[in-house]
Amino acid sequence: MKITDVTCERFRTTAYTVADADGHGHPVSEPYETTMSLTRVHTDEGFDGISFGGNESVIGGIVRPLLVGRDPFFREAIWHSMNERQRLHKGSLSDKVLCAVDMALWDLAGKALGIPVYKLLGATRTKVPAYASTMCGDELTGGLSTPQEYATFALACKERGYPGFKLHTWQPPIDWAPDPKMDIAACAAVREAVGPEIKLMLDPFHFYSRDQARWIGKELEKLDYHWMEEPMDEQSMSSYKWLTDELDLTVVGPETMEGKMFTRAEWIVHGASDVSRAGVGDVGGLTPLMKTIHLCEAHNVACEIHGGGPGNLAALCAMNIPGEFYERGLLHPFVDYEQPPPHLNSIADPLDDAGSVTVSDEPGLGWDVNWDWVEANRVG
Amino acid sequence: MKITDVTCERFRTTAYTVADADGHGHPVSEPYETTMSLTRVHTDEGFDGISFGGNESVIGGIVRPLLVGRDPFFREAIWHSMNERQRLHKGSLSDKVLCAVDMALWDLAGKALGIPVYKLLGATRTKVPAYASTMCGDELTGGLSTPQEYATFALACKERGYPGFKLHTWQPPIDWAPDPKMDIAACAAVREAVGPEIKLMLDPFHFYSRDQARWIGKELEKLDYHWMEEPMDEQSMSSYKWLTDELDLTVVGPETMEGKMFTRAEWIVHGASDVSRAGVGDVGGLTPLMKTIHLCEAHNVACEIHGGGPGNLAALCAMNIPGEFYERGLLHPFVDYEQPPPHLNSIADPLDDAGSVTVSDEPGLGWDVNWDWVEANRVG
Repeated sequence: MKITDVTCERFRTTAYTVADADGHGHPVSEPYETTMSLTRVHTDEGFDGISFGGNESVIGGIVRPLLVGRDPFFREAIWHSMNERQRLHKGSLSDKVLCAVDMALWDLAGKALGIPVYKLLGATRTKVPAYASTMCGDELTGGLSTPQEYATFALACKERGYPGFKLHTWQPPIDWAPDPKMDIAACAAVREAVGPEIKLMLDPFHFYSRDQARWIGKELEKLDYHWMEEPMDEQSMSSYKWLTDELDLTVVGPETMEGKMFTRAEWIVHGASDVSRAGVGDVGGLTPLMKTIHLCEAHNVACEIHGGGPGNLAALCAMNIPGEFYERGLLHPFVDYEQPPPHLNSIADPLDDAGSVTVSDEPGLGWDVNWDWVEANRVG
Repeated sequence: MKITDVTCERFRTTAYTVADADGHGHPVSEPYETTMSLTRVHTDEGFDGISFGGNESVIGGIVRPLLVGRDPFFREAIWHSMNERQRLHKGSLSDKVLCAVDMALWDLAGKALGIPVYKLLGATRTKVPAYASTMCGDELTGGLSTPQEYATFALACKERGYPGFKLHTWQPPIDWAPDPKMDIAACAAVREAVGPEIKLMLDPFHFYSRDQARWIGKELEKLDYHWMEEPMDEQSMSSYKWLTDELDLTVVGPETMEGKMFTRAEWIVHGASDVSRAGVGDVGGLTPLMKTIHLCEAHNVACEIHGGGPGNLAALCAMNIPGEFYERGLLHPFVDYEQPPPHLNSIADPLDDAGSVTVSDEPGLGWDVNWDWVEANRVG
């Protein structure tokens, strides 16, 4: 089988959130039209593989010349050549693009072989407990604008069956944010509302100082929180080593720090976190995510998977030291997460009454695309 | 698909070597009849997977109850349960048994999906340069009984096209062995015979002292040797850290030390070798070998694959930091390695004129078994 083309298609769909000035999504009162991209690897045997995301100019300019003519089952070689090519294309060939291409290759492999990707990887399970992961705090009354509103939402998530709940608290451009005391007020209100059984996590503002991060961590220990993520700039590994030493609370990371599995190896060797962290979008695809998972396993280090979607769910269903949770979201009281956007027939992560997400048994990664919609709404 | 049975079959075949009192193989003047075992995973969909090796009582007593009824694509879960079960079965459920079962599951996956295993893993290449790996030294005139005989054999291997040559030198029960001076005499004679272009490696007696190992290493540096393996008991990681610090010569390991990818992680963290090492038989199968390879990659550590056969060759064709060589052997002037034993139609590692081995493109691991022979020669 040979790759004949790699394309990045765009289509119109409906958006239910809008990004603030700092890039975090929040609900909108009226859904609006937006465009999405879809990366597709085409072959000479009629199979293709897809992934959402990708960038038309980078796919066309850098990726297509690298891939056309190659056997799509040479995923390791292809990923390696993209990884090397990044060095001179720092501004364009991002890990997000690597992720889109690598995921499309996995999707293609599964479709061509008639098997879901989690079984290609060597499966461990078919369902994963999920935690409800909130959007960042906002100033929308009845949304996530006060500690009590987080508490109300957490209780609703508990009643829905989620065994865990993670707060993303207030960040700029909200003028009074960040505020460690408000973070802890929200965390305390949530613990008070849901009781002691639910596992609670915090992912606050990402640029606190060491002192602020330690203070928040110590308060979370009193509230019996399960872990904290990324309270400081992850570009300073030493500060995470310091924080991990200072706290009994489980520190999970790195997440957004670049460097793929190499960075995770350094954090493990230096004890810069208690639990490692990666998602397909952080490390450049499912191929390096599995490398990261295997790295962690060889060190007896647990790895929590960042973000949702079919690639992360496939990895979660093929881990020997299992990731504890699937991250489901981002959620908000005003947004119906169960409702697929118009370009999908169904969501990728249906939740059962026990609060678990079940992996698709369809060949490939299992995106359930509404192709009629995509065809009717192509752009360009 | 469900596993319906796991069996360990025995059949008669022909042996061309015999083990000495210390367990190392040497040629015999007359081939003789021996028995081999074959582990087979059976399924309810007519596919089965095989691997040579395995032990009837362990497969029947421990493995079969663990596997029957499970989906054979749950390789990670199955491997994990075998790994855990080893703890209370140290004397019986060896890494060799794990290897036989895991390889059979990979073979099954490839056959069921109609694809060679190296492509399931995500391929990087289809051929790998091979080095000629000798049997241990002996007292057979014209064999490997003198430094000059090693030199003569190395020259023949060079002429055959091999880009590398590895000596296994003299060990007990030869009464004058081990002898560091004789090791170096053989290494010097080989270098003298083949000239400077061929890469040369040494795998000597495995229980030298630190001083002896360092002396050998320093001599090998003068002879421009490419690497040395396992000159001391690998149960002492600290002595390998010491040796690696003492030598400019590349130290490759661990090989026979137990502990799978976990041990490799420790050696990497502690700088106990320059290049890591593992083979399917050392770490309990292809699943943990790929974990080891991914671990090494995350640390930018090269990994040389120990031993030959289809599982190791599949791994070599799916490595991002490529193993430099396929280990072809063990070879001896008196043994025709190119001739398949009667239970195989062809050998797994055909050598081309450039000294490379090409991976099979048959579905599964690609053993080319002579089933008529096996059926006609069943035991028990």
